[in-house]
Amino acid sequence: MSKAAGCRGFLHHVFDYETAKTLVIPHFGVGIVFRFTQLLVVLYVVGYVCVVQKGYQETDSVISTVTTKVKGFAYTNTSDMDPRMWDVADYVIPPQGDSSFFILTNLVVTPEQTQSHCPELPNPSTVCKDDCDCIEGYNDPRRNGIRTGLCENFSTTVKTCEVFSWCPLEVDTRLPKKALLAAAENFTVLIKNSITYPKFNFHGRNILPHVNSSYLAHCEFNRLTDPDCPIFRLKRIISEAEADFQEMAVKGGILGILIDWSCDLDWWAGKCLPKYSFRRLDSQNQDNDVAPGYNFRFAKFYKRADGVEERTLIKAYGIRFEVIVFGTVSDSESGCNWVMLTCMRKRDLYTKEKVTYLVESPDSEPVSMGTTYGTQ
Amino acid sequence: MSKAAGCRGFLHHVFDYETAKTLVIPHFGVGIVFRFTQLLVVLYVVGYVCVVQKGYQETDSVISTVTTKVKGFAYTNTSDMDPRMWDVADYVIPPQGDSSFFILTNLVVTPEQTQSHCPELPNPSTVCKDDCDCIEGYNDPRRNGIRTGLCENFSTTVKTCEVFSWCPLEVDTRLPKKALLAAAENFTVLIKNSITYPKFNFHGRNILPHVNSSYLAHCEFNRLTDPDCPIFRLKRIISEAEADFQEMAVKGGILGILIDWSCDLDWWAGKCLPKYSFRRLDSQNQDNDVAPGYNFRFAKFYKRADGVEERTLIKAYGIRFEVIVFGTVSDSESGCNWVMLTCMRKRDLYTKEKVTYLVESPDSEPVSMGTTYGTQ
Amino acid sequence: MSKAAGCRGFLHHVFDYETAKTLVIPHFGVGIVFRFTQLLVVLYVVGYVCVVQKGYQETDSVISTVTTKVKGFAYTNTSDMDPRMWDVADYVIPPQGDSSFFILTNLVVTPEQTQSHCPELPNPSTVCKDDCDCIEGYNDPRRNGIRTGLCENFSTTVKTCEVFSWCPLEVDTRLPKKALLAAAENFTVLIKNSITYPKFNFHGRNILPHVNSSYLAHCEFNRLTDPDCPIFRLKRIISEAEADFQEMAVKGGILGILIDWSCDLDWWAGKCLPKYSFRRLDSQNQDNDVAPGYNFRFAKFYKRADGVEERTLIKAYGIRFEVIVFGTVSDSESGCNWVMLTCMRKRDLYTKEKVTYLVESPDSEPVSMGTTYGTQ
Repeated sequence: MSKAAGCRGFLHHVFDYETAKTLVIPHFGVGIVFRFTQLLVVLYVVGYVCVVQKGYQETDSVISTVTTKVKGFAYTNTSDMDPRMWDVADYVIPPQGDSSFFILTNLVVTPEQTQSHCPELPNPSTVCKDDCDCIEGYNDPRRNGIRTGLCENFSTTVKTCEVFSWCPLEVDTRLPKKALLAAAENFTVLIKNSITYPKFNFHGRNILPHVNSSYLAHCEFNRLTDPDCPIFRLKRIISEAEADFQEMAVKGGILGILIDWSCDLDWWAGKCLPKYSFRRLDSQNQDNDVAPGYNFRFAKFYKRADGVEERTLIKAYGIRFEVIVFGTVSDSESGCNWVMLTCMRKRDLYTKEKVTYLVESPDSEPVSMGTTYGTQ
Repeated sequence: MSKAAGCRGFLHHVFDYETAKTLVIPHFGVGIVFRFTQLLVVLYVVGYVCVVQKGYQETDSVISTVTTKVKGFAYTNTSDMDPRMWDVADYVIPPQGDSSFFILTNLVVTPEQTQSHCPELPNPSTVCKDDCDCIEGYNDPRRNGIRTGLCENFSTTVKTCEVFSWCPLEVDTRLPKKALLAAAENFTVLIKNSITYPKFNFHGRNILPHVNSSYLAHCEFNRLTDPDCPIFRLKRIISEAEADFQEMAVKGGILGILIDWSCDLDWWAGKCLPKYSFRRLDSQNQDNDVAPGYNFRFAKFYKRADGVEERTLIKAYGIRFEVIVFGTVSDSESGCNWVMLTCMRKRDLYTKEKVTYLVESPDSEPVSMGTTYGTQ
Repeated sequence: MSKAAGCRGFLHHVFDYETAKTLVIPHFGVGIVFRFTQLLVVLYVVGYVCVVQKGYQETDSVISTVTTKVKGFAYTNTSDMDPRMWDVADYVIPPQGDSSFFILTNLVVTPEQTQSHCPELPNPSTVCKDDCDCIEGYNDPRRNGIRTGLCENFSTTVKTCEVFSWCPLEVDTRLPKKALLAAAENFTVLIKNSITYPKFNFHGRNILPHVNSSYLAHCEFNRLTDPDCPIFRLKRIISEAEADFQEMAVKGGILGILIDWSCDLDWWAGKCLPKYSFRRLDSQNQDNDVAPGYNFRFAKFYKRADGVEERTLIKAYGIRFEVIVFGTVSDSESGCNWVMLTCMRKRDLYTKEKVTYLVESPDSEPVSMGTTYGTQ
């Protein structure tokens, strides 16, 4: 074979058009089934791909809003503090009732701090013998202030370098072993959650249509007896998350209140109800439990009659609750599968007609074809 | 047929290889079209699946940041309160200018509360005749404090159990019928929003390139005349959400400011502009409007000259604005469809060549089949 | 051909059943490969579609929680203010240690404001010659209060209209050119981040198992030497975002701390580690830099001995840090591709056997078939 011919053959091969062979069966019953199946596929494409798939993308822009309102008060009467009644304006921080709120359960209070001088807390790097050990102006970011250069009595036995800071310094080792606001376990929180799937124009609310004001005034969430009540007792929430309120209240923690709005909008929308679950979000029970709990410091500022600014520093331990709303709309995959199965069934039905056996002797061949259509 | 033969037949069947028969058409023109279509498919796979699909996933990690700054002040002069000028530091809570901010429009103030004793608010469960009706230490979480065991005069006509609490107690039924800060409807808010689609390295900002400082100093958003101005008058926002400011200001509510950054990065990126819309997020106008509005309590703490802690409790009603930024990048499905359609057209073009008609008379038949297998 | 016959022909055409012809090759070796490939496809469908795809959807509901704790203090001693030590309760706003926190770096303080009268700041619209220029009760929302109708001396040279407002008025042009809390660059922030992919039951934490308390007490994040330390020095964060701390501290800004938890759960989950990156989120360095930086106003409220409410207004400039956690689980597409390629390879392997050449002369035909199987 010449080179030119080989090349021409190659080109022929490159530009050959290859397509599957098909068999047309002019049988009315079979044809009806075939066209009906095609119709189903078209309906599937139009219905599923155009309507549902488009809908599926929209779920990304679900709009949710949450407000929370805590109720309850606690009375404390310890040796450190005067008797005191704590209400929401004292223990809910910040007060706005957002989807994330913090409930104070334990605290270290350092009252009457002013900008002044005081000896540092004892520590290998702050203990001193005389003023020479304390360099004026030195500041260690892990300590509490700027050194004045003096060595002062911290207690009758220990001398430490004096610093300029908010004095007296906080001694946060005096954290109560039992949470001060142990009574917080009986506080309740009303959660109002409205959601919208904007392009579906679907609106949902966790206060269900059948819930009225008088029910709301007395109900309390219980997975078995009151699953629709949007008022939650803190103790119950935390036990559902498999944690212990009193243990969590001492050092603080973070708890997730999950509201799942996943539902199938193809069916009766009234069935689209919120499902609550609870989960402790800060890591605990781990082998490596460094930096456990949750706390932060804040201050209340006062001005004395003489114009000096004074503050009460509070190291607040407590539980941060985070209401997390999520949900995707069901994508009707069951419908899809049904169509698929139908197509599959068709294939099985006509498998015989479709296959042609290649056998040793050419004459024994087209058995199936012969028996089915060849003798028409 | 022997059992062994049957088994062998079954095995034959199990390990038969079944494949579609194809027809090769060595026609240059048809081949060119065929290969060109294949090229399109390859380009489609490389371009669409690798570039765009990957991009589509990235939209999940769109990074957005919002800052808000409210301007305006209100003057109030009611019988309950001294004349007072309210500015941003008074009515924006919290003050940080986050994507969610609250504007105080109505309030119940309870000044000079201290930890002390006072009679409960009258209520079937708190009214008493003598001290025997008031059990010391009893506390009802739906009431306001711990009972001292005394029955005191609440008014000249009613006696109630005395409680230890922040006294005097708040009487929140005295909410003004007309919002105290009705003037808030003329406050304006500047919204600064920067977004990034990180992997596309696309940066967007709602302060558009053509907006300069002098325009920004005087403009105000108007869908028709100033659609690019990022300064919004509260009244307009709320009327665009089909709500009424004055009605909403009395009991409070939640309003969503939606910024849609959906755009097609395949085309000129300069066309990627924010679209604003507004939507009331708390449920209203429902048949079952329990627990309507939005309010929360907070306190300002003071210290008296004698060292006693005193607070002003404020039950704040107002409108929480939530700036919600969303957007997905167009995934070029139109391009995909075009390739698909091209493939479809090809099929139609060569349908004739692909099908083989099975007809009544075997002789008129199998042109293609005959040439292929009939003469073996 | 009669009309009836044409119609019948058309109906025949409509209800013909068209299906691909297939060839069955009864070869044991080929069959084994074929069935094995089918098995792979089934495994792929079960393993990939059912397990991974389902998993892929779950990533939308990744649950993340972040707490932050800033450490460090700054000492200021300027002519405007008394010497002062700033600690976390002074400069972290809000104090809760959320995923978004603000660190005060510069400020304009206006102390001892009370509800009273004072002349407006000089401005073309506020300067006056006598009382006739000042209409009583007029209020311009872009100015500071309600006019009393008097024209007063603002300074020895300028007279302005008097307003009722929080007086004295803030003069925010006195912003320090060098950030007051320049020392904030050495503050550190500990970020604790726990994540959960709920349906995978995968929990992750950015404090890695090998990190112990003593390491945490001294470490500092460094991309090269300490990539696992969750304590970040502010200066380093900002330089990694290609910004300058001192320049940013003057007018404020917004900085994103991105934690990427994308990982492949198919493989050893221990390899699922957080990746940190940093990005400045407010727009800067743009040609059109209107309304730059980040600031907000807040007030501390005091009560004088005579019962008058007084406030210290603070215009706070600083850096808002936003911890943004994201991540999607790898969807095993590499595995998918491998199966696909295997299927493809199979196709190539048997391409010869599958195709039938349509050629001019029927006799020159079924070369491939004959040579491969026909002579068995």
